[in-house]
Amino acid sequence: MPETITLYTAKTELALKESKLPYKRYEIDLSNKPEWYAPKINPASKVPAIAYGGPDVAPENPSPDSQKIAESYVLLELFADLSTEVPLLPKDPILRAKARFFVETVTPKFSGAYYAALTRGEDPDQILGAIEVIQNLLPPEGFAVGEWSIADAAVLPFFARAEVTIGNDIGKFEEGKGKATWAKIENDEKYARFKKYFNDLKSRDSFKETFHPEYVKETFAKRFARA
Amino acid sequence: MPETITLYTAKTELALKESKLPYKRYEIDLSNKPEWYAPKINPASKVPAIAYGGPDVAPENPSPDSQKIAESYVLLELFADLSTEVPLLPKDPILRAKARFFVETVTPKFSGAYYAALTRGEDPDQILGAIEVIQNLLPPEGFAVGEWSIADAAVLPFFARAEVTIGNDIGKFEEGKGKATWAKIENDEKYARFKKYFNDLKSRDSFKETFHPEYVKETFAKRFARA
Repeated sequence: MPETITLYTAKTELALKESKLPYKRYEIDLSNKPEWYAPKINPASKVPAIAYGGPDVAPENPSPDSQKIAESYVLLELFADLSTEVPLLPKDPILRAKARFFVETVTPKFSGAYYAALTRGEDPDQILGAIEVIQNLLPPEGFAVGEWSIADAAVLPFFARAEVTIGNDIGKFEEGKGKATWAKIENDEKYARFKKYFNDLKSRDSFKETFHPEYVKETFAKRFARA
Repeated sequence: MPETITLYTAKTELALKESKLPYKRYEIDLSNKPEWYAPKINPASKVPAIAYGGPDVAPENPSPDSQKIAESYVLLELFADLSTEVPLLPKDPILRAKARFFVETVTPKFSGAYYAALTRGEDPDQILGAIEVIQNLLPPEGFAVGEWSIADAAVLPFFARAEVTIGNDIGKFEEGKGKATWAKIENDEKYARFKKYFNDLKSRDSFKETFHPEYVKETFAKRFARA
């Protein structure tokens, strides 16, 4: 039997769902973290984190005998190492390198443009430049490296959050600009490959079961309201 | 026979040396990159990068049939995937996760403090805080996760460059402060575990053959001269 995994959650759950590995989830209220979380799970007090192995205990009472691991991308690689039945990374070393290169390139590029608009009110059209970079890396068909992989899990949450925020004009930029940017992504043939990729990702159960658009919309609308 | 690897180089060579995989190296002059480098090897024009596989050609005439891979840490993981005889990462998934967590934690922490001193003249004593973080992650003996791994290759160049610059008072901080910080690392028992770790790393052939202290000293002294 595989070791118990308890996920103190956020977006990494998507990859864990894809893996079919059994796990327990425990939702951490980010605005009011439980007292035991930092000392017993992650000294940096951030989510996501997991407890791995050890006795089968309640998530709010973690055992000192389980391993505690944190950091989103570290967890994604760990799930790929643990998931022997459902591959989360290709076996081929070069495709694995391409998956990692995709994450290292797309994450700062897309999230940089997205956060610049959301938090500092810069032109949301910067996102279009990031989308061109993504399209240049994508193969003609399929996901980041063909078959679905943790590379897709690593970047999807940024796209999905950008869609429900920027696409609904949530952010510190000038009113109307977010919707205008998102309409280009939706309608301009130039971004068709990205749109197909994003839609393919959103159609998977792992995404539908772990992404909560109304929650993102509501919390981000409060946090990044226009002045 | 393993595929040809041509390394367009910088620090990742250390891990390639540890792996014993055969490779060719081609030194890229960063201040005067050859014209063919961006179009044929790395569109982002950065080093390190490799050409992997394809016909055995001269490094300055890369074949379109080889795979081109860039980004230091992507390359380190690739070398670990390729190096089946000399393990560059442990087999155990939890130790692998700990190696990656070490890199994700130590890199920004140490390089943040180091660059703040070197390039912006902030107090070099910030490095001591980073060293405490490192010591909290290190096991009582050995390297980042016990046996030598790519986690050590990823962080060592920062330590080594900090020693020859900060330790020799090279950087934009107040004269004397760099030497004072480094004297604490050398002499204060508080930093003994880090000092042992750093010395163990420096004693390996892979380091001695790939680190060029005089070159670092000279180029950094020019670039980050005190005002």
